Amino acid sequence: MNRDAFASSDSVRTNGPLRHAQYVTLDEPLELELGGVLPRVTVAYETYGTLADARDNVVLICHAISGDSHVARHDANDEPGWWDIMVGPGKPVDTNRYYVICPNILGGCRGTTGPGSINPETGMPYGSDFPTITIRDMVEVQRRLLDHLGIERLLAVVGGSIGGHQALSWNVHYPERVQGTVLLATSPRLNSQALAFDVVGRNAILRDPHFHGGQYYDKPEGPIVGLALARMIGHITYLSREAMTRKFEADRLKPREVATEFEKTFSVGSYLGYQAMRFVERFDANSYVTLSLAMDLFDLGATPEQLAATLARTRSRWLVLSFSSDWLFPPEQSRDIVDALVANAAPVSYCNVQSTCGHDAFLLPDDLETYGEMTRAFLRNLESAGKGEQPTGSSGAEALPPERRLVYDRIAELIPPSASVLDLGCGTGRLLARLKQNGSRRLVGIELDEEKVLGAVRRDLDVIHADLNKGLGPFRDREFDCVVLSQTLQAVENVQGVIADMLRVGRTCIVSFPNLAYHPLRRKLAEEGRAPRAYGWLRDRWYDTRDIRFFSIADFEDFCRDKGVRIDRRIALNTERGVEVTDDPNLKADLAIFVISSPVPGREG
Amino acid sequence: MNRDAFASSDSVRTNGPLRHAQYVTLDEPLELELGGVLPRVTVAYETYGTLADARDNVVLICHAISGDSHVARHDANDEPGWWDIMVGPGKPVDTNRYYVICPNILGGCRGTTGPGSINPETGMPYGSDFPTITIRDMVEVQRRLLDHLGIERLLAVVGGSIGGHQALSWNVHYPERVQGTVLLATSPRLNSQALAFDVVGRNAILRDPHFHGGQYYDKPEGPIVGLALARMIGHITYLSREAMTRKFEADRLKPREVATEFEKTFSVGSYLGYQAMRFVERFDANSYVTLSLAMDLFDLGATPEQLAATLARTRSRWLVLSFSSDWLFPPEQSRDIVDALVANAAPVSYCNVQSTCGHDAFLLPDDLETYGEMTRAFLRNLESAGKGEQPTGSSGAEALPPERRLVYDRIAELIPPSASVLDLGCGTGRLLARLKQNGSRRLVGIELDEEKVLGAVRRDLDVIHADLNKGLGPFRDREFDCVVLSQTLQAVENVQGVIADMLRVGRTCIVSFPNLAYHPLRRKLAEEGRAPRAYGWLRDRWYDTRDIRFFSIADFEDFCRDKGVRIDRRIALNTERGVEVTDDPNLKADLAIFVISSPVPGREG
Repeated sequence: MNRDAFASSDSVRTNGPLRHAQYVTLDEPLELELGGVLPRVTVAYETYGTLADARDNVVLICHAISGDSHVARHDANDEPGWWDIMVGPGKPVDTNRYYVICPNILGGCRGTTGPGSINPETGMPYGSDFPTITIRDMVEVQRRLLDHLGIERLLAVVGGSIGGHQALSWNVHYPERVQGTVLLATSPRLNSQALAFDVVGRNAILRDPHFHGGQYYDKPEGPIVGLALARMIGHITYLSREAMTRKFEADRLKPREVATEFEKTFSVGSYLGYQAMRFVERFDANSYVTLSLAMDLFDLGATPEQLAATLARTRSRWLVLSFSSDWLFPPEQSRDIVDALVANAAPVSYCNVQSTCGHDAFLLPDDLETYGEMTRAFLRNLESAGKGEQPTGSSGAEALPPERRLVYDRIAELIPPSASVLDLGCGTGRLLARLKQNGSRRLVGIELDEEKVLGAVRRDLDVIHADLNKGLGPFRDREFDCVVLSQTLQAVENVQGVIADMLRVGRTCIVSFPNLAYHPLRRKLAEEGRAPRAYGWLRDRWYDTRDIRFFSIADFEDFCRDKGVRIDRRIALNTERGVEVTDDPNLKADLAIFVISSPVPGREG
Repeated sequence: MNRDAFASSDSVRTNGPLRHAQYVTLDEPLELELGGVLPRVTVAYETYGTLADARDNVVLICHAISGDSHVARHDANDEPGWWDIMVGPGKPVDTNRYYVICPNILGGCRGTTGPGSINPETGMPYGSDFPTITIRDMVEVQRRLLDHLGIERLLAVVGGSIGGHQALSWNVHYPERVQGTVLLATSPRLNSQALAFDVVGRNAILRDPHFHGGQYYDKPEGPIVGLALARMIGHITYLSREAMTRKFEADRLKPREVATEFEKTFSVGSYLGYQAMRFVERFDANSYVTLSLAMDLFDLGATPEQLAATLARTRSRWLVLSFSSDWLFPPEQSRDIVDALVANAAPVSYCNVQSTCGHDAFLLPDDLETYGEMTRAFLRNLESAGKGEQPTGSSGAEALPPERRLVYDRIAELIPPSASVLDLGCGTGRLLARLKQNGSRRLVGIELDEEKVLGAVRRDLDVIHADLNKGLGPFRDREFDCVVLSQTLQAVENVQGVIADMLRVGRTCIVSFPNLAYHPLRRKLAEEGRAPRAYGWLRDRWYDTRDIRFFSIADFEDFCRDKGVRIDRRIALNTERGVEVTDDPNLKADLAIFVISSPVPGREG
């Protein structure tokens, strides 16, 4: 392995050297996944922060297709980095705490070996002789770089889009070296629509008469038009429809006066033409073809089962972030990853960030308060776990109203100390945080509200942003010792589905809900002729409550009987008076906790 | 005007003559909207069915960008038409009833004058000398064709996509000639995303070295690659992500062996390459540029106010159909058209057809049961209106359960015979149909369920497919004499918003709902300790009812007092016994009808 510095001949057609980049040439031949060998690979990379003595604070950042090693400024006078909002002192990826490494990817054109590099066998640029590479090959180069730097283990690998593919691939090929993984706006494989756009982009380049089969480096003109067209298509797919409307509708017919020979009738056209020409100046067409094909060949599995099998060796804790308006790597594909991780019982938090910014959202400040803070909290959790500390904000001991405290206490008492627990509608995770202090084995929350998901991640919990009404698909039968549905059933649309699902997934289930037949509520209807409300757990008015199901203890017992649900225990509480009710609970209790289960012949839980 | 037949020199670069097309050359010079003149225009068109003696059964079909005059087979041995599923004997556009005319559009390349036609001034094809045309110019040519055929008035103009633009333009420029309009998958202007894809497509053509500034007809090779790239981009945008997944995921890496020099690594690539080459064989690049630019320049207004003003002269009745998965002409843009029509008090029905087929849905059989049957019913309504008949299925006299009959009767009695009425949650329009028989002036329904919308269109009603919770935005203040919300409030999420909106839009409002405080329901909770249900209007169980709001007559009265709503009248019914209740209605009535209004100083309704 050659630790010598940058061989300038290796950076043909890049846009000048990056001031802070370091270069390593790895002389060990790289055997490629799809065949062929690269005899020598140079890697350009930049580092930020300080490597801890224990070498346990390394965050590897994998960039997207048009990115490079310059993820952030190194100082105030430095050129802007592509992710300055996320990486730097005090930023979510805090370079005061972490040692950040960002290498340019294999096949790129910003310092790391790619089609524009000199082929040592010919002394000429590879051009189209550059072999077809895969995401795995990129990761292999990164792995060798880390070996070279003497780094065995990553605190986290972080990547968006094709950077997410690399982060996933790390977990497939070197699972033992990854403690945590942050994925943003990525997928387990491209969907057919995204693939199709890439195909058209490559066709534009490959069929450009100036492409010359990839050997254009010595020609007066390269496939500029083809690369520009590919970039325009890409650019559209990175933005949401809403973002484009916001950006271009006001000046629809007022194109900017920009230097481009492309159509300038509409403002959106002048923008695309200008951006494409800027891209063409700094990017190599062969690299674009190479990288986009690598992305398109990336495939962790066509079915949920295949995907789960591919990720089966993961030892990482995961944070998966998608963006609601991303139509190139749509949220459902991130959910596929989450489901595969869940199927492997891997610790994972997920949030589908509400955003109008499309695929580019992870590069923009608009939603940083969500995805940035999620990432910050998640990295802190990893850090604390490594050090055996309790992360900040993990306490479940905040002041609770006394009636809620009572319910939490009773539910917590029902759960054995080491039980695995799934909390449906977990909020910011108060109950789970409490169980964590009790030493529970595996704790997972599901929550619909984005802010509460962030709150739960801050408590060092694994929480999945999802709608209960859509089912608990990826969880296996009887996967958890206990599934909790606390103070949530009254807001559930698909009552039968949710109860059936929790009974499937949990050996025992705990359901708590307010009792509509509590005597002051009965009186309200019977004597005043008004909807029972304005009392304790049913506080809101009939027209603005989020509750949509109204039922009593007796109703729930009827339901269990009708559906063949076994009631293992019933605790009726009067939370006003802070006592358990044993005499006529349907009249005297304002809240009930049921322990229920699904009788499975011969497998009583 | 020259009625002579087809001048073959006028069809340079078309894909051979269409067997059943007729050709008319209009010698009157066509002055174009954006300047310039076409000295002579030939129109290719096909007709189907028989023109009625009264000339009142003409349906004009406007085709989309790659279509032509051959909308359907003329006989069993004929070549397939592009809309055989919709047009023919017994089909939704029934050629046994209607005289269908489908002309090739101006600027096209299938018989009507376009860039490939001979410029009479030079004796050579126009090429890039063909002027920039607009949708209005296309409509002007169609208007002249109709004049030539002696047709004054259209029963309907029907068009999807850019065909919808033409149908809209007919209503802007010749409103007096259009009795009915059917729009499918269209918009009042392209959104920035759709525009951007067109720009990239045109750039691919215009920057193809074989384009030669548009003068390529005498060259050995035309801009084949550029046109193919434009078509590939278009093709992707016509399909939904879901449709592409369905079509290509199973064989992702098994491309078909097709004749194309484009990338064939993925099945979606081989498909796009093959389809693009087929398109290139039959389509002219200059036409593609001309037509796509005309589409992009089409603009009925940037704001709701401008759009409403542009459509102010319409005298048409409208059917607007969008498709839920159409992301090129997304449903919200059809809603913009509907809102503008509503703002003009124009009669309009709207349905956002639940579909997985994307923009192409209107050309595919998958959702024909909805959009085809909507179109069929709508055309019948137009036909009957023209003839002064009651269309089939318009009766509101179907058997109703007695308790519902009583409510309908009482609500109908509250509405003066000639009043204008908006029915929120109108179902299949039973109440509106009944009011129609009473001679009500303007009747509009809003309904969330697609099938019920079709039912209401079949009853010859104007019904808008929409979610009440999202507001009644386009309706003007006090636009209707009466707004009805019958047996719907209990399923409404945004109670305050819906009530506020109906009070804004209606001079008086009628609200009916089941009374939670009806004595058997009180008893149910008070004595049995169970949720009030299993009775009359509240029939379903607590866990499967669609009702999410539970309230009594007294609760509603409290609400009205708190919100400053004036109660003009209250009718309490016991529908079990079929009587009105005057003594203690909150106890003895199972249903209430309120007439409410918003007191506006000095303008009491």
